[in-house]
Amino acid sequence: MTSPLPIGATIGILGGGQLGRMLSVAAARLGLRTHIFEPGAMPPAGDVAHKVTTASYDDSVALTAFGQSVDVITYEFENIPTSALDLLETLRPIHPGRTALATSQDRLTEKTFLQGLGLQTAPFADVSDMDTLTAALSEIGAPAILKTRRMGYDGKGQARIMAADDAASALTDIARAPAILEGFINFSHEVSVIGARGPDGSVACYDPGENVHEAGILRTTTVPARLNPTQRTDAVLIAARILNALDYVGVMGVELFVTPQGLIVNEIAPRVHNSGHWTQNGCAIDQFEQHIRAVAGWPLGDGSRHADVVMENLIGDDMDRLPALAKTDVSLHLYGKAEVKPGRKMGHVNRIVKS
Amino acid sequence: MTSPLPIGATIGILGGGQLGRMLSVAAARLGLRTHIFEPGAMPPAGDVAHKVTTASYDDSVALTAFGQSVDVITYEFENIPTSALDLLETLRPIHPGRTALATSQDRLTEKTFLQGLGLQTAPFADVSDMDTLTAALSEIGAPAILKTRRMGYDGKGQARIMAADDAASALTDIARAPAILEGFINFSHEVSVIGARGPDGSVACYDPGENVHEAGILRTTTVPARLNPTQRTDAVLIAARILNALDYVGVMGVELFVTPQGLIVNEIAPRVHNSGHWTQNGCAIDQFEQHIRAVAGWPLGDGSRHADVVMENLIGDDMDRLPALAKTDVSLHLYGKAEVKPGRKMGHVNRIVKS
Repeated sequence: MTSPLPIGATIGILGGGQLGRMLSVAAARLGLRTHIFEPGAMPPAGDVAHKVTTASYDDSVALTAFGQSVDVITYEFENIPTSALDLLETLRPIHPGRTALATSQDRLTEKTFLQGLGLQTAPFADVSDMDTLTAALSEIGAPAILKTRRMGYDGKGQARIMAADDAASALTDIARAPAILEGFINFSHEVSVIGARGPDGSVACYDPGENVHEAGILRTTTVPARLNPTQRTDAVLIAARILNALDYVGVMGVELFVTPQGLIVNEIAPRVHNSGHWTQNGCAIDQFEQHIRAVAGWPLGDGSRHADVVMENLIGDDMDRLPALAKTDVSLHLYGKAEVKPGRKMGHVNRIVKS
Repeated sequence: MTSPLPIGATIGILGGGQLGRMLSVAAARLGLRTHIFEPGAMPPAGDVAHKVTTASYDDSVALTAFGQSVDVITYEFENIPTSALDLLETLRPIHPGRTALATSQDRLTEKTFLQGLGLQTAPFADVSDMDTLTAALSEIGAPAILKTRRMGYDGKGQARIMAADDAASALTDIARAPAILEGFINFSHEVSVIGARGPDGSVACYDPGENVHEAGILRTTTVPARLNPTQRTDAVLIAARILNALDYVGVMGVELFVTPQGLIVNEIAPRVHNSGHWTQNGCAIDQFEQHIRAVAGWPLGDGSRHADVVMENLIGDDMDRLPALAKTDVSLHLYGKAEVKPGRKMGHVNRIVKS
C-alpha cells in the first residue's frame, strides 16, 4: 500500500475529452495537478490542466517524457493502444490496472468474466464469421444485436438482427470485425451504479441512477432510480463484487438492466461515467474527485447524496437551447468544444430537484 | 447592452490566487477560457487557466498583449495599480468598473459613499497626522480602530486604540499612512451578502451567511445566518442598493454588522468573496460562476440555495488536519499552494448540513 500523493503531485491522464477535463478540475480541488496526453489538438481538458502533451499513442518519446513527468497514470477512455500501456507501465503505476482494461475492452472477455462471477448477463455467443453467426443465431434466436468485441461506444459498432435474413448485412455493417451476438433482454429500465475502490480495498458506491438513451447515446440520468430496496442493495453489491474481483483502483460505471428475473449486467466501464455526472451537484465528493482520490491513494468519500438530481446531456444541436437553459437555475457543465456536430456531447446540465 | 460572450471566448483575470483559480474553473464550466495576469511565479490559478502571463503591473508591453488577447477583463483583488487599469481600459471592458474599484479601494471614499446612500456605517473620521487623529478621537472616543485608507485586508493595516494614550503608537503601527479612525460597533454577529448585478441591471443575492473571524481572518461562514425575516430582507436590500448605485457588473461581497439599531455596513469588496465560498456546494450556480456570468453578459442565476452549508477556511497549520478531513464526507477545496505559512489561506472545506 503506497502512501497518498502529496499536494502538488501530478496525475497523468490519457485522453483530453470532457471526462479528462472534469477529472482535471477535481484534481485541482485537491491541490493536485494534471498532465493530459492527447493526440488531438486543442483538447477540452487542456483549458484546465497544468500541462498538455499533444502526441500520438505510438510516439514512444512523447509517451516516455509524459510518464516520467507524472506520479501516477489514469485514463478517461478504455480503448488505449496496448503498446502505449506496455511502455507507460514500466514508468509509473497505471490505475485502474491492466486486468480491468483488458476485461472491459473486449465484450467477449467482459461477458465471460461477469458470468464467471455468477452475475447475470444477456445471452451471448462468439462470432467471427458467417458460420459462427448462423450458429449463434440458432442458439440465441432473433431479434438479437451483433456487437464488435472492441472499440464500441455510444451505440457505434452495433447492428440489429431482427430476423435470420439480416445476418449477412449485419456482418457487413460491422465490417466483419470480431464480434459477439447478444440476445435481446426484456427490461423495464436501465440503471447504473458508479462505484469506486481504493488501493486499500475500500469500496464506496453512489446511489444508482436511472438512464434513458436515445439513438444509443445517454440522454438523461435521474437519481434516485426506480428500484425497490432489494434491487437497490443488489445493484450496489453487484458493483462491489466486480470491483473486488478486478482488484480495481478508481471509479467504474456498471450498467444494469432491471428485469423481473433480477438485475442483468449490460456493461462495465473502467472510468468515470456519463451516468455519474449528476454527482457533481448531488454529492459532497463527486465521481471525478472520487476517481482522483482512489488513483492518488487518498481516502474515498462515502458516496452519500444530499439532493435528488436529473442530469441531461447536451448533444449536438441541443446547444441551441443554451440561451434558454442559461436563464434557469440549473448547473451548466459545458465542455468548451469549438464545433457542434450531430451526436457530439457538448455539455450537460444538472437540475437539482428540491425535496 | 452588449451581447453575451460566446463559448470559447476568453476572460482576462488580474490576479492568480485562489479566487482567480476558482473563477477559472467556473469559466471552464461555461465553456469559456481564462487568461491570468499575475506578477508572482506559479500562481494557484495557473493550474486551471488556459493561459498565464507572469509580469509586473508596470510592464505595459505585457499588459497590452494581455488586454488584446482577451474579450473582457475582471480581477480577483481590488488593489490593482491605477496605471495598469488606465492602460487596460483603453483595450477592453473592465468589470466591475472603475467607480466600484475607486470606492472600495479607499476606506474614506467607501464610508462616505455608503453614508450618502443613507446606509449606516461605523462612526469615522479622516486621519492624516497626529492633529487630525487627536481631533478624531475627541469626536469618536476610544476604544476605536485606526485603519489605513488603502491596501488593508485580513486585518492588516489596522491598529487598535484603547485609550487616547495609544494614539502615537497606533500612528507608528500604520506607518503614518493616510487613515480613518473608526468607532467601535457593539454588534452581536457579522453577516455578509454576496450580491451580483448583470450589465442589464438584473440583481441576484445569495442568502446571507454568518461569519466568524479569528485574528482578523475569516474562519467560518454558516448559512443560513441568524437573522430574523426583516433583517434578512434588509441585508439583501442594502446589497442591492449598493450594486445599483455603483452601476455594478459582477459579484460583490457586503459585510454587515448585526446590531439592535439595525444592520451596519462594515465594508464592501468588489469581487467574489471568501464568505461566499459556501455557494460552491449549496447552490446550482456558485458565486464564481455568477461573477463570470455577469462579466460575460450571461443571465444571472437566481441565487437560490438547496442546502445548508458551513464553510471553514484552512489557514496555515490547519493543513495538518487534512488527513483527518479527507476521511470525512466534506467538500475539500485546496488551492495548490506549495508552501504553508502562518495566516496563509491554503484551502477551505464546505460541510453540507442535511436538513
